[in-house]
Amino acid sequence: MRHFAEELEELNQALLEMGGLVESSIHTSVQALVEHDDRMARRVVEDEMLINRMELNIDARVTRLLALNQPVAGDLRLLVMCLKINTDLERMGDLAVNVAERAISLNRLAAPLGPPLQEMPRMASMVEDMLHRTLDAFVRRDAEQASAILPADDDVDRIRDGVYTELITTMRRDPNLVEAAIHLMFVARSLERIADHATNIAEDVIYLVRGVDVRHHHLEEV
Amino acid sequence: MRHFAEELEELNQALLEMGGLVESSIHTSVQALVEHDDRMARRVVEDEMLINRMELNIDARVTRLLALNQPVAGDLRLLVMCLKINTDLERMGDLAVNVAERAISLNRLAAPLGPPLQEMPRMASMVEDMLHRTLDAFVRRDAEQASAILPADDDVDRIRDGVYTELITTMRRDPNLVEAAIHLMFVARSLERIADHATNIAEDVIYLVRGVDVRHHHLEEV
Repeated sequence: MRHFAEELEELNQALLEMGGLVESSIHTSVQALVEHDDRMARRVVEDEMLINRMELNIDARVTRLLALNQPVAGDLRLLVMCLKINTDLERMGDLAVNVAERAISLNRLAAPLGPPLQEMPRMASMVEDMLHRTLDAFVRRDAEQASAILPADDDVDRIRDGVYTELITTMRRDPNLVEAAIHLMFVARSLERIADHATNIAEDVIYLVRGVDVRHHHLEEV
Repeated sequence: MRHFAEELEELNQALLEMGGLVESSIHTSVQALVEHDDRMARRVVEDEMLINRMELNIDARVTRLLALNQPVAGDLRLLVMCLKINTDLERMGDLAVNVAERAISLNRLAAPLGPPLQEMPRMASMVEDMLHRTLDAFVRRDAEQASAILPADDDVDRIRDGVYTELITTMRRDPNLVEAAIHLMFVARSLERIADHATNIAEDVIYLVRGVDVRHHHLEEV
């Protein structure tokens, strides 16, 4: 049996690799949207299968590590976190596929959506950055860095709200743009949900390092 | 230290209790919508705090059971599943809150949305039923019953698609209904996502009993 530390390191690497693919799927899905490129969108749909395989593989690794090493305290907490991060990453991959599918539908409609469409690359780059920094904080066990990500979630929410408002105006003005505007609304929604999952991971990292659970932190206000 | 079996039983009960509250939140959120009752909607928002507490409590229980009993094989798989089911239930609670918040917004608009609005109680009762039967399959360790839930997910998707189509027609016809129709679209979306999470749990139960992972079952087709 190999050293536990070595296996943990491999698990870290597997999560980072999965995170890298998810990040690239987010990026490609939005590129497919703004460049009207179905081929790119289909690549995201295909890559989901790889992401799903990675999820199953990571779950299996964690379960094996739990069974063989029966870790306690910090190591146990780490392995439980890995399961949660794995779920979040897989869900982000699904959301990137949603964006890619909406891109394909929008390409067919060729509707001039203007400024709200141009907001998508900005949102995407924000959520990619959140994911990237969160995973970096995870491997470094850096709670400061993880905390620094949390405010970005509100920024993403604000952009989404602005996009919704613009799209509602568009739909009211031009009934022919209703269908396209709704596709774009769901794109903004998916990107915002990706930011939520990055936030989940950041909160897990803070818990892992500090032992303080910041999920549902509003509970403290009761 | 109490018996592991006894603690597992308590964990089962805690998950069932959480599931019951989530089920009731789904029900109340849609009732708030069709009965235009803000008070009911606010109750769902308040109950989310209880659901969140339950999630933290269940996570802590599982982690303690892993640490103290160092289970292997079936018991270990069960505990890992409990973590996943916990995450799914909490997310369903969030989605019920989304429905409740949309209900409050819709009550303010008092828009005549007609048939698509009337579909919501039907969707809600389908997803409540899925959740209920899934958790029942979980406590009975009944893979047959869990499998029987899976087709309902497609039924829910079909209703959602029908609702989307009707709402798009509504928005094209009457620009004044755009905002309300979008709220309702997100309600349908939330209910459909709740069905997805019930499906996740059903797949976990099948895995738990049969040891076969049916998540991402399309991988087999490669």
